[in-house]
Amino acid sequence: MTKAISEKKESSKIKRPNRVLIKEIAEVCGVSTATVSRVINNNGRFSDETRKKVLEAVERLGYKTNIVAKSLRTKKTKSIGIVVPDITNEFFAKIILTIQDFFFTKGYSVLVCNTNEDPGKEELHLKDLEAKWVDGLIYFFCMEDKGQIDAVRKKIPVVFVDRNPNRKVAVVVESDNYTGGFIATEELIKAGSRRIVILKHVLTNSTIVGRYNGYRDALKKYGIEFDPQLALDMYITPDAAKNAISNLIEKGVSFDGIFACTDGLAAGALLALKKYNIKVPEEVKLVGFDNVSISEYNSPSITTINQDKKQLGKIAAQLLFDMINGSPIQEKDIIVPVELVRRETT
Amino acid sequence: MTKAISEKKESSKIKRPNRVLIKEIAEVCGVSTATVSRVINNNGRFSDETRKKVLEAVERLGYKTNIVAKSLRTKKTKSIGIVVPDITNEFFAKIILTIQDFFFTKGYSVLVCNTNEDPGKEELHLKDLEAKWVDGLIYFFCMEDKGQIDAVRKKIPVVFVDRNPNRKVAVVVESDNYTGGFIATEELIKAGSRRIVILKHVLTNSTIVGRYNGYRDALKKYGIEFDPQLALDMYITPDAAKNAISNLIEKGVSFDGIFACTDGLAAGALLALKKYNIKVPEEVKLVGFDNVSISEYNSPSITTINQDKKQLGKIAAQLLFDMINGSPIQEKDIIVPVELVRRETT
Repeated sequence: MTKAISEKKESSKIKRPNRVLIKEIAEVCGVSTATVSRVINNNGRFSDETRKKVLEAVERLGYKTNIVAKSLRTKKTKSIGIVVPDITNEFFAKIILTIQDFFFTKGYSVLVCNTNEDPGKEELHLKDLEAKWVDGLIYFFCMEDKGQIDAVRKKIPVVFVDRNPNRKVAVVVESDNYTGGFIATEELIKAGSRRIVILKHVLTNSTIVGRYNGYRDALKKYGIEFDPQLALDMYITPDAAKNAISNLIEKGVSFDGIFACTDGLAAGALLALKKYNIKVPEEVKLVGFDNVSISEYNSPSITTINQDKKQLGKIAAQLLFDMINGSPIQEKDIIVPVELVRRETT
Repeated sequence: MTKAISEKKESSKIKRPNRVLIKEIAEVCGVSTATVSRVINNNGRFSDETRKKVLEAVERLGYKTNIVAKSLRTKKTKSIGIVVPDITNEFFAKIILTIQDFFFTKGYSVLVCNTNEDPGKEELHLKDLEAKWVDGLIYFFCMEDKGQIDAVRKKIPVVFVDRNPNRKVAVVVESDNYTGGFIATEELIKAGSRRIVILKHVLTNSTIVGRYNGYRDALKKYGIEFDPQLALDMYITPDAAKNAISNLIEKGVSFDGIFACTDGLAAGALLALKKYNIKVPEEVKLVGFDNVSISEYNSPSITTINQDKKQLGKIAAQLLFDMINGSPIQEKDIIVPVELVRRETT
């Protein structure tokens, strides 16, 4: 009883003028809420008299079908979740924008959850999205997979974007990271580089591994021995890259090319090269990855590997939409081509 | 007391492996859904026998209280909406990230809606968020106000961020755009500029108007006559700025300083200056606005006005949270200070 009173107080505080609920209509009409639902949805049995009574009350009380009430009935919320490391990363933001635009035209809302690459946060977001009954999930996963990926997939349609969880039955949309790493390194080699630094994320997800393998294989193809001194791991901030390249220069390690696994890392590397008055591309050549503003509007503008953000977002959105609407979920690994964008650093 | 206890019970129930609904339990037990709700929430009248029957069915069917069902009862969804022009703009993304982090710690989800400065889209998003019962709204508005701003505010707590709708009773968190425009222009004047171009958005929202008024007043203070030829309106892409400055150079209009109302515009202006081999800062000085990566990691790095993205987000989130939780909504216009970040272009 006490609870009922305090809840009533609570709800009267909120004042949602036109949102009179089924419950209130049921009370007014002296019928069950189930009956009200049946009348409103014109679904199931009820007498003409009940129908008239309920519809009058609906009119009088200004009841409008609302999405929350409808969700309870249909088990669909017309919302999807996006779990992503960091929306301030332009690469992620551009994919998300495309996905949001797609789902907007379909009448869906989008819950965006940033994990900051923190597995604990990621797990909490997944639980929350599940509790909120999102109809589907776009998932840039970061955490080590301890079975939770399959657990989520069993409950809800999931499309993995960018990072491949390497689960046999997952639906994945990713760039051709291997080829990207290969052609980035080949571009440096063809421009004359032989001692090629790779700047990469400390994480070992599929995107990093793919680019790294491409780098290694390109070196091999051109008979260049891999030097572990030149493979530098770091968190992907421009400052980390600036520090790493500065360190290499201070230590006297020689190099004449840099493959930075993101454009942000490339921009940081460029700052270090300028600090030490190393001419780009004359003395050191540089290739980034992603093709985001920071490479395009830098000076010199940075050669990079374009990831087709729009295509990644569009394919992922369409797949998830199809899955939500009952298309059979089958193993799919869509690999979106990348391409070299040659600018002033090679 | 009673409320505290029943809430405790409820939260222990929240795990929700199966989505068996009240309706199904009601069917199994042969009672109305209203009765099931009363038993589950321990709220209202029902016989001991009914109670036993329902709870057994609850156990058997694995029913757990879920957020959607709870929303229908409490009219709270533990979610907020963010309406924003474009999340791929780092300035907006950084504010949003801070807001998401805040609400994450409070157990809220965040629906993000991009308007792309399109009033039609903005209006649809507002309606959708309302239908989805978000508990509150963070609103970077774009559209011309035809009364809809007040309409939204009457239904739901709203905090306006960045752009001031100039409604007497709104809660607004914004940067000190006027002072930003003033000190940006003053920096150029003190560095020797007299013919100062302003690059600004075609929109006339409060942020643009504030910066423009600051620019005009700084010119006035230093006895420099305003030349309308030097006030250039455009959409805020680097390419638009590049074209505008290139045009000015081609037309032979002389200038020795540029105040770009965003860092993106400043980066575009820099490209045009380079194209025409104009030395920065020797021949033309340049100041941007926002302090996002594109100014920090450019070359030369661009002097800019820092907007405190974290502070804007933090204050907005706290205000909205307080409003959602019953704090009286009163007129507030929080103005967050800006500061000059001097780099290599002045």
